[in-house]
Amino acid sequence: MYKLVLLRHGLSEWNIQNRFTGWHDVDLAEAGMTESRQAGQALRDAGFQFDTAHTSMLKRAIRTLWVILDQLDQMWMPVVRDWRLNEKHYGALQGLNKADTAAKYGEDQVLIWRRSYDISPPPVSEDDDRFPGNDQRYTGIEKSRLPKTECLKNTVDRVVECWNETISKEIRSGKKLLIVAHGNSLRALVKYLEQITDKKIIELNIPTGIPLIYELDSDLKVVRHYYLTDEDMLKDAMAAVVKQGKAK
Amino acid sequence: MYKLVLLRHGLSEWNIQNRFTGWHDVDLAEAGMTESRQAGQALRDAGFQFDTAHTSMLKRAIRTLWVILDQLDQMWMPVVRDWRLNEKHYGALQGLNKADTAAKYGEDQVLIWRRSYDISPPPVSEDDDRFPGNDQRYTGIEKSRLPKTECLKNTVDRVVECWNETISKEIRSGKKLLIVAHGNSLRALVKYLEQITDKKIIELNIPTGIPLIYELDSDLKVVRHYYLTDEDMLKDAMAAVVKQGKAK
Repeated sequence: MYKLVLLRHGLSEWNIQNRFTGWHDVDLAEAGMTESRQAGQALRDAGFQFDTAHTSMLKRAIRTLWVILDQLDQMWMPVVRDWRLNEKHYGALQGLNKADTAAKYGEDQVLIWRRSYDISPPPVSEDDDRFPGNDQRYTGIEKSRLPKTECLKNTVDRVVECWNETISKEIRSGKKLLIVAHGNSLRALVKYLEQITDKKIIELNIPTGIPLIYELDSDLKVVRHYYLTDEDMLKDAMAAVVKQGKAK
Repeated sequence: MYKLVLLRHGLSEWNIQNRFTGWHDVDLAEAGMTESRQAGQALRDAGFQFDTAHTSMLKRAIRTLWVILDQLDQMWMPVVRDWRLNEKHYGALQGLNKADTAAKYGEDQVLIWRRSYDISPPPVSEDDDRFPGNDQRYTGIEKSRLPKTECLKNTVDRVVECWNETISKEIRSGKKLLIVAHGNSLRALVKYLEQITDKKIIELNIPTGIPLIYELDSDLKVVRHYYLTDEDMLKDAMAAVVKQGKAK
């Protein structure tokens, strides 16, 4: 039996400003730092220790992980930064807030982008700063692989590829893994692990800063999962995330 | 022509208490945090950007690196934590302060350990907490490779191995590398790069928190090196490190 811990990064500056963030590299808000510390304490109090951590190439996830590693006194742990764990790329919506987006594209259209599994927002062009091909950090990755926009389905595809190529292998080798990532990349992973339908996954919200523990059998099938928190905190966090979810 | 940047971690709690630290995982002191931020600012102001960082498995080096990555806005950078970049293992001296050590072993003996290239302090036993074989973080490493004590020569051997196996290959592949490590592991690397004699290397002191820039030719021979700081700061730092050096 294997254990895998997922954690969505704490609140960022843009969560608070209600802007579509995607691959924009915004930092944690002070509230996000506090959430990260609490998550680290909860893991420490429950006696969790890890062998390796996987995270995205975005600082709100990396900083959340740093706080956790510090709390667990495991700063020495290997950390893999993988672009395939990045947040969904929001294309031309990135940087806009909810009001801007509704004004520019209409409420109905925004609802379609927000609720559909396989319809992407308008793409950015190749010369747009928001195209990852113009960002030094993705230099090592084939340009054709980098998104100009994404629907959740695209995010699922790359997260599952990452799972198959690296994460699942490490788990099978007996390593205890911590994955610190984003609302949609974790949703993508949970969809795959729990075989959730395209329709149902849209309704799944993973709260920020609360460790989500998965127990897997020898075939990496889910035996059970639970949040490492008490019921009241979880209810509050779920309510908060639904509210924020309106402009992730 | 290649550029390589070396940085010795900022002052730790035990530097200040004048205790032999070695592989003991002590954290940065507040002064060490400040030094790290200054080093990060200096690198940023001089326009340095890196592709990969290498550091040890000890938090005083890792935290120094984290501060730098934050200052450079390069938290996404791959980081390799390698035990071979750890500080020299001080054997049975680890944890003792200068006065304790002199009382226990005599001033003359302490001077021999401090000034010799190839005489190690007394080893710890296998059941000693200070033996790295009893530390979770080194689980993946063959026990016979882990030191019970070290002289500088031993440290040079493992640092050079690390250089040959990983660091030099990355430099040759065109990557810009930052190495954040310790007084003796950096001394070991500098000895190798500059072919300094066993006798001379003992007198070389690398100050904490000041980036040391190496320019290398296509055969990785040193073309020149310089500290990224002004003359006055360097002089102060050198004086400080000689003073601290008495119980590293």
